[in-house]
Amino acid sequence: ITTTCTTFSLSRSDFDLLHNSSKSAKSLSYSPYSHFRVGCALLTHSGDIIVGANVENASYPVTTCAERTALCKAVTTVFDNDVKWGGEGEQQLRFKAVAVATDISPPASPCGMCRQAIREFCDVEVPILMFDGGEGYSVLRLKDLLPLSFGPEALGVREMGRQQESKSSS
Amino acid sequence: ITTTCTTFSLSRSDFDLLHNSSKSAKSLSYSPYSHFRVGCALLTHSGDIIVGANVENASYPVTTCAERTALCKAVTTVFDNDVKWGGEGEQQLRFKAVAVATDISPPASPCGMCRQAIREFCDVEVPILMFDGGEGYSVLRLKDLLPLSFGPEALGVREMGRQQESKSSS
Amino acid sequence: ITTTCTTFSLSRSDFDLLHNSSKSAKSLSYSPYSHFRVGCALLTHSGDIIVGANVENASYPVTTCAERTALCKAVTTVFDNDVKWGGEGEQQLRFKAVAVATDISPPASPCGMCRQAIREFCDVEVPILMFDGGEGYSVLRLKDLLPLSFGPEALGVREMGRQQESKSSS
Amino acid sequence: ITTTCTTFSLSRSDFDLLHNSSKSAKSLSYSPYSHFRVGCALLTHSGDIIVGANVENASYPVTTCAERTALCKAVTTVFDNDVKWGGEGEQQLRFKAVAVATDISPPASPCGMCRQAIREFCDVEVPILMFDGGEGYSVLRLKDLLPLSFGPEALGVREMGRQQESKSSS
Ligand SMILES: [Zn+2]
Ligand SMILES: [Zn+2]
Ligand SMILES: [Zn+2]
Ligand SMILES: [Zn+2]
Repeated sequence: ITTTCTTFSLSRSDFDLLHNSSKSAKSLSYSPYSHFRVGCALLTHSGDIIVGANVENASYPVTTCAERTALCKAVTTVFDNDVKWGGEGEQQLRFKAVAVATDISPPASPCGMCRQAIREFCDVEVPILMFDGGEGYSVLRLKDLLPLSFGPEALGVREMGRQQESKSSS
Repeated sequence: ITTTCTTFSLSRSDFDLLHNSSKSAKSLSYSPYSHFRVGCALLTHSGDIIVGANVENASYPVTTCAERTALCKAVTTVFDNDVKWGGEGEQQLRFKAVAVATDISPPASPCGMCRQAIREFCDVEVPILMFDGGEGYSVLRLKDLLPLSFGPEALGVREMGRQQESKSSS
Repeated sequence: ITTTCTTFSLSRSDFDLLHNSSKSAKSLSYSPYSHFRVGCALLTHSGDIIVGANVENASYPVTTCAERTALCKAVTTVFDNDVKWGGEGEQQLRFKAVAVATDISPPASPCGMCRQAIREFCDVEVPILMFDGGEGYSVLRLKDLLPLSFGPEALGVREMGRQQESKSSS
Repeated sequence: ITTTCTTFSLSRSDFDLLHNSSKSAKSLSYSPYSHFRVGCALLTHSGDIIVGANVENASYPVTTCAERTALCKAVTTVFDNDVKWGGEGEQQLRFKAVAVATDISPPASPCGMCRQAIREFCDVEVPILMFDGGEGYSVLRLKDLLPLSFGPEALGVREMGRQQESKSSS
């Protein structure tokens, strides 16, 4: 763990927070179809933790994984310091680390769809911690989990901020 | 509005809260691809409001709509009264109404995917309020937006609560 | 059946073709996770039948339902008469009816996500036939399964044809 | 190209077929929202080519990418030799290579969601060829585009074949 923290620029308390938050987030899972619980915790640069869990649906493709639940939560939250995604001070919200916890061993990795979702909101260097059902874990950077990724640049989108008006605004 | 409130068992303050919350949630939208802002607000039976906005992705199918963002937030949140979805007192969390706001007129309705997501967590009688960019709105019950719906029953899932252990738990 | 055919402008052989094709398409289902087989058949105005089945994934949200499999197949196929979607003669490809078959009773309806997908490529009057595991079936028009739908118009897209060049073409 | 063919065990005609088929499949793209055309070609061990293109939707998350369109097509097709996925002789259908073509340069890679879809039906050694708008291309194996992937094993699914009866069969 000490080595992990050094390699990925995390403090020991960051690590413990990510560990505990992602594990306890598993209890929030709504997974009556797969019976496969997943918890996720995001750590922002300002020290906020946002948790999520998988939210399934009778129509399987309508399911939202834990990672995307947490990302959507984070992106649509106005934090105590009045900072919101796309606004001034957004850097504070950018993620310092992503943690995912499941009940299996070896630890499960984010599915490809979630790697793509993380790609939209994180630097490719962001560490992704994967915790198993016991005390084991793995860590890889996003660039190692989704190499040569397809991102906003491919569509020519440069300004990623939140627009103030819809194009179809009435 | 008075008629709407009577028909759908909402108080005037419920209505105003849904109206204002869904409209202001549009400012949380992350939509650099469609430039189409959507805000959503869910009202629980205990009076909590949960808001969401659409969160897009360079890979379009990885996008999460406002309604699903709000639902996933609600389902994975532990509220002040210590109630969580799938736990004791869940009834307090069940939704009394769903509101969606966009910048167009006539007001946009939830896409089919979101109607399906709402179906998983709401009674088919739940009212869905759709606000346009001005002062107009429409209201329909879920059963009128998604008739003859495909729900958990079709898969034989009866106990919808959150399981405590994954089947593959190690 | 005679009444159904009259009401929805289908010949008896159209009906039988839709029935048999959607039922036999169930055998093409790849559903090791839900064990819930779904077959779909699309009938074009030129008399072609395109079938699909659900294609699941270990990551549930990556699943493609039978209806969307069939639609994507149809839209990306060049038929014998050299007609393709978005090209001249496309009207011949437009769908006259959609059929879905499962093993349960009462018959399952398309999930909301698929109703949305059908909406993109069909007139709202298109009949959707739902066959159960035996001899029972229901029929409803798209407008009755997805009332007040969110379609291309909401985004201001008028010309639905296939563009010849990408905007980012190099 | 010669080196590519040697490294990935493809003949020169395999390569040309993948190249030409994926490029021409771009013309099948239905992408009125992104105006970003993508074509895909799958080569089976028996020499069949299955093509697909992206099929978008007014509700962005209902979009199906080119790769998933092609995979769903392949999995739900009965080929001339009467072999179908999940049946006897399936090995002939397993994919020898995947090709993706876009109009941009450097060539676009499959999004994370599609890498996950490919994972379900291919060996992790399968080569993925990415063609740009001109004569350039890149090649990487699936294991290099989706390392440490989340697959069927994580859910304890061993028998991947197509079941003959739904569990809820009536
Ligand atoms: Zn995922
Ligand atoms: Zn939606
Ligand atoms: Zn569906
Ligand atoms: Zn994709």
